[in-house]
Amino acid sequence: MRADPFPDDALVRNAFLGGRVQLWQPLEGYRAGIDPVLLAATIPARSGESVLELGCGAAPALCCLGVRVPGLKLAGLEIQPGYAALARRNLEGNGLDGEVFEGDIATPPATLRALTFDHVLANPPYFEADRRSAAPDVGREMALAGPAPMAAWAALAARRLRPRGTMTFIQRVERLPELLAAMQAVFGSLELWPLAPRAGRAPRLILARGRKGGRAAFRFHPALVLHEGARHLEDGEDYTDVIRATLREGKRMDFPV
Amino acid sequence: MRADPFPDDALVRNAFLGGRVQLWQPLEGYRAGIDPVLLAATIPARSGESVLELGCGAAPALCCLGVRVPGLKLAGLEIQPGYAALARRNLEGNGLDGEVFEGDIATPPATLRALTFDHVLANPPYFEADRRSAAPDVGREMALAGPAPMAAWAALAARRLRPRGTMTFIQRVERLPELLAAMQAVFGSLELWPLAPRAGRAPRLILARGRKGGRAAFRFHPALVLHEGARHLEDGEDYTDVIRATLREGKRMDFPV
Repeated sequence: MRADPFPDDALVRNAFLGGRVQLWQPLEGYRAGIDPVLLAATIPARSGESVLELGCGAAPALCCLGVRVPGLKLAGLEIQPGYAALARRNLEGNGLDGEVFEGDIATPPATLRALTFDHVLANPPYFEADRRSAAPDVGREMALAGPAPMAAWAALAARRLRPRGTMTFIQRVERLPELLAAMQAVFGSLELWPLAPRAGRAPRLILARGRKGGRAAFRFHPALVLHEGARHLEDGEDYTDVIRATLREGKRMDFPV
Repeated sequence: MRADPFPDDALVRNAFLGGRVQLWQPLEGYRAGIDPVLLAATIPARSGESVLELGCGAAPALCCLGVRVPGLKLAGLEIQPGYAALARRNLEGNGLDGEVFEGDIATPPATLRALTFDHVLANPPYFEADRRSAAPDVGREMALAGPAPMAAWAALAARRLRPRGTMTFIQRVERLPELLAAMQAVFGSLELWPLAPRAGRAPRLILARGRKGGRAAFRFHPALVLHEGARHLEDGEDYTDVIRATLREGKRMDFPV
């Protein structure tokens, strides 16, 4: 648990979306990779709508989404006060309005429980707490292996969503059974969109979407390929065009129709 | 429900595995496509082991498996006596020893409940009974939309399996959430292997395997492609090499390692 704010000399400033988003992140601790950026690119939010991120960390996804879609009402829930403070600083630093609530998934603050949203997103901890050895940094450990089961994340999202609202997760493939069971219990119109590192390779990440009150049949989309070629051949990036446009130009990345 | 045996003039004889398997099937009713053939090709059974198929129908999968792997102890459970009789005739006609039990998934006969198996397989009804209009043929309707939920299929399989035994399903992608939740409740070491009609297209079928008492992490394999090319261009088959070898030469088709 990171209770105190990070001192400035414990932070590093990273650029996202080709420099359109600047993000302060802890030098030691959990730092965003491409996952929250891809997650944010898929959220079908339109100007004027409200969006909640569960477990927002330093708010990379909220910042990328807010910069891509002006006029959103942004909110985040973060259990670690140090990261919540960083999320507020990053939203403000990117010219975004947003509220960051401190609290955990199982018992969110009453102020958040009074609100509803058009869209919820989450990039929950990737490992189950009892399946891995603890990371040396407690903040990083919490971000990677928080204690709440996927069912608690999905249930909170469903309670905070308006009817027909969307919930989008990005998660490691290893947790798909738990994620899908959790989503199935509270959402309809489920869709899975696997992300494969290269063509023909097993997916490692999965985007999963459900809709509150949705009644469409389950859909399983073809894998989205992250990197060109069969293997890594040279230094530098080898992202596919879709991924590069998302990461570097801030393009939206709609789920397949 | 098909209670009576099919009269001979209501049957047609079809060849599988390049003619190595001959199968009597109803002219009107449920007839096997490639799904049970692919399912049978994945079962990691070795000579001397025992195999149970739940909802075996006319036993296309058991016959393909038994011909590929000599010396198996084969068993099937089938709710419709007419199909069960056909399954017995097909096993015998292909020179295979096997026992076909009549009964349903929820309350299988005591004689079956006294047995355990090394491997269980199933190609359960593809549609939920309450989501489709009934097919005109009652036997076909039962095969396509039987009443037992996936949880009942998985639970029965788990009870009849020996420790470390494998359960393999083939199922339509639309039922994956229900299937995965059902398997997760009773099996470990879950693996999903999607079957895509063509490269880059959304999978329509999925092979799913679990192991009784398995403890390995969930695995999600790259999709197996059924047909060559981006679309159907000419008359005749356009199966990929792996699929053609499985369907026409009776080759085994192991889950990816």
